[in-house]
Amino acid sequence: MEPGPGGACRPPKPGLGRSRPGGAGSSLSRPGPGCRVAAVLPAGGCGERMGVPTPKQFCLVLERPLISHALRALESVHWIEDIVVAVTRENMEAMEDIIQRYQHKRIALVESGVTRHRSIFNGLKAMAEHGATMKLSKPEVVIIHDAVRPFVEEDVLLKVVTAAKEHGAAGAIRPLVSTVISPSADGCLDHSLERARYKASEMPQAFLFDVIYKAYEQCSDYDLDFGTECLQLALQYCQTKAKLVEGTPDLWKVTYRRDLYAAESVIKERISQQICIVKDTKEDGEHVGLLEEMLRNEFKHANITSQAWGHSARDLDHIILEPYYNFVCVNVMNSGCHETQKLLKLLEDSHLSIFYPLVVISVHFVADNSVSLGEKMEDLRQIRELAKEVKKRNILLYGLLIYYPQDELKLQERLGQGTDIIAALIKERNPGLAGQLLVA
Amino acid sequence: MEPGPGGACRPPKPGLGRSRPGGAGSSLSRPGPGCRVAAVLPAGGCGERMGVPTPKQFCLVLERPLISHALRALESVHWIEDIVVAVTRENMEAMEDIIQRYQHKRIALVESGVTRHRSIFNGLKAMAEHGATMKLSKPEVVIIHDAVRPFVEEDVLLKVVTAAKEHGAAGAIRPLVSTVISPSADGCLDHSLERARYKASEMPQAFLFDVIYKAYEQCSDYDLDFGTECLQLALQYCQTKAKLVEGTPDLWKVTYRRDLYAAESVIKERISQQICIVKDTKEDGEHVGLLEEMLRNEFKHANITSQAWGHSARDLDHIILEPYYNFVCVNVMNSGCHETQKLLKLLEDSHLSIFYPLVVISVHFVADNSVSLGEKMEDLRQIRELAKEVKKRNILLYGLLIYYPQDELKLQERLGQGTDIIAALIKERNPGLAGQLLVA
Repeated sequence: MEPGPGGACRPPKPGLGRSRPGGAGSSLSRPGPGCRVAAVLPAGGCGERMGVPTPKQFCLVLERPLISHALRALESVHWIEDIVVAVTRENMEAMEDIIQRYQHKRIALVESGVTRHRSIFNGLKAMAEHGATMKLSKPEVVIIHDAVRPFVEEDVLLKVVTAAKEHGAAGAIRPLVSTVISPSADGCLDHSLERARYKASEMPQAFLFDVIYKAYEQCSDYDLDFGTECLQLALQYCQTKAKLVEGTPDLWKVTYRRDLYAAESVIKERISQQICIVKDTKEDGEHVGLLEEMLRNEFKHANITSQAWGHSARDLDHIILEPYYNFVCVNVMNSGCHETQKLLKLLEDSHLSIFYPLVVISVHFVADNSVSLGEKMEDLRQIRELAKEVKKRNILLYGLLIYYPQDELKLQERLGQGTDIIAALIKERNPGLAGQLLVA
Repeated sequence: MEPGPGGACRPPKPGLGRSRPGGAGSSLSRPGPGCRVAAVLPAGGCGERMGVPTPKQFCLVLERPLISHALRALESVHWIEDIVVAVTRENMEAMEDIIQRYQHKRIALVESGVTRHRSIFNGLKAMAEHGATMKLSKPEVVIIHDAVRPFVEEDVLLKVVTAAKEHGAAGAIRPLVSTVISPSADGCLDHSLERARYKASEMPQAFLFDVIYKAYEQCSDYDLDFGTECLQLALQYCQTKAKLVEGTPDLWKVTYRRDLYAAESVIKERISQQICIVKDTKEDGEHVGLLEEMLRNEFKHANITSQAWGHSARDLDHIILEPYYNFVCVNVMNSGCHETQKLLKLLEDSHLSIFYPLVVISVHFVADNSVSLGEKMEDLRQIRELAKEVKKRNILLYGLLIYYPQDELKLQERLGQGTDIIAALIKERNPGLAGQLLVA
């Protein structure tokens, strides 16, 4: 049951395309902890509690493996120099595919051990011993995190690293949700613990590299096989009392199927806050202006960029350097989908849809009395064709037809309906409805 | 800080309409534990951890308060004779509204105390002392559950009640997800607990009434104000060692906002397994038969009832006595929505939509070459009007237009698209898209 030799390391593969510090917010301008920091991510678990055959770190959340979400959270922190991921031999290739497909950076793979502690130790060994071959070097502080905690933020990482620099070890904690009890051998209550006096130990944790490495070198096989707590090893073998740092609720460990649902809902909520409006005219008709106003009210925490654009590289950058995953494209001047097609082309080139499914809503206005049904059907057919194409690139295209009557009150009502439909489509990101033409 | 007098009890209000044992499955035919059982549900908490102003037991999950989901789970177990809910004085009226609106049965309300233990004690007192005025009587075994654990099932309830009859006390437990640690006064790690030797104490729990009542009568103010574990009181004051029963993951306590998302997803998944197909003809055209077959494959664990119906009371009962929350209504014979309208009328009368939003998809076939766009627009208008009406009754109506070409391969493709759209609509139950006419 010994794990493979620590030598089963592989150098990180170069990612595709350019690195973009985006998505969950760039950290380039924020000061780091002022020392060399690396991270170890044990990902050798089999996920038996999830009740599905796929190990939980590879379960898809919004069509992307959970571990990729966690890696993206770590790599968006610029002062984490290397991220060592420990995976089983069987999953090595799958992991390399994930790194390439989702353009992860600064990743090195090592083979996991049969337990979490052995996997982490393998990761540490790669940093300590294989510096020359792996282009890894020994950091001053090492972060230990979980592949199944996708929402770790720079703030808490900085806190544990800073505390580890001072105390030698640090870890995030949370209040206990349930009372903890100790059963007796016959399956009855022996005693219960006073809930307020205990805490749940969560991730991330951080250590002075020399402290945790020494602890792993000295600890017993029993520790490696049955222990669950790195902080305990530092305490026991290095007399290092870890500083405990209060974490946020979002640090929870994705363990059960319901946690996958929760993680997906959390991500959907996060990426549905902002929309980008693109239109093919600088002149605002009354209806376009009113729709913009309503969308501004609907997406309260949103930056709405409304502009006529010249399809230059600068316009493109303006759109995609901000973390927009939702686009409303208003086609006013032309009856077809020209503007939408141009936007789709730019989005396809941007690689933005690698991270999350993009929602694009192609809005078409039709005057109430001039309705040409044949033309409408043509729009529908065109949107369906386009949607089929871009869906392969993780872009969800929907059409929205808004009839605008002369009556101003009725117009308000129609635009309100249109806003509701846009909000519903963005909130759900339902691939099954891509290509549909909805009507307000 | 003393709670109000236990005398603030109110008799249960009679619910509306007839009682239907449905939804999560009736239990009428299963044998009970063979003794008088009642339940206490403390619901006086303020939900500070959720980060929202509404106490978490009143947060909406699929538009229904969480506590109503928990009550429905308990009242669907026929051998639980009374359910005593403890709520704050401020929430008493809101709770009465919930009972009336969602037709809950066998409920008595008492005023909660300032802590969970005091609320439970108030509930027990109502059973012990106020039998005459409240039509409650002292049960042999009392279940204690949480208003924020909506997924409790009869199986685990029977297990804890049976174990409590034998041992005096019993409670559900789960493995610990995180390691539990004890901090020292300076916020550092004092020691960590060996995870495998401890368990999380969950709900439901059950007790011989006399055991838990005596424990509450004898325990100290400190216990009542700071204790969290009823099993501990039974141990400490009645020398009763509770039997521990392994619970299911779904027993978890809804604590954070992400838990609301998870609960909603779990419910959506549960009620999306079964669909009922209704059609206005006994003769199957090729396209109707093929659509049925595809739906049968899509909804794997589903009973599909496909029948021509005579709108009699028997047909109605056949439909609504099964827990169907999803309807596909195929309009073949008529170009309009006659069949759909009839179905909607029956569903509105059935009160089934009290519990969950019903999805009704009105399917219309149009031959590829005979497409009359004017007619289609008329269908759309009719569906939007109908949808607006029935949405007030928690019924989500969508239209689905399926073009069927002569080409058999193309027909298969279209019907496949139709099936995908139906599945997507049922899975998401998106109210924002109700009234839309989708096209396959």
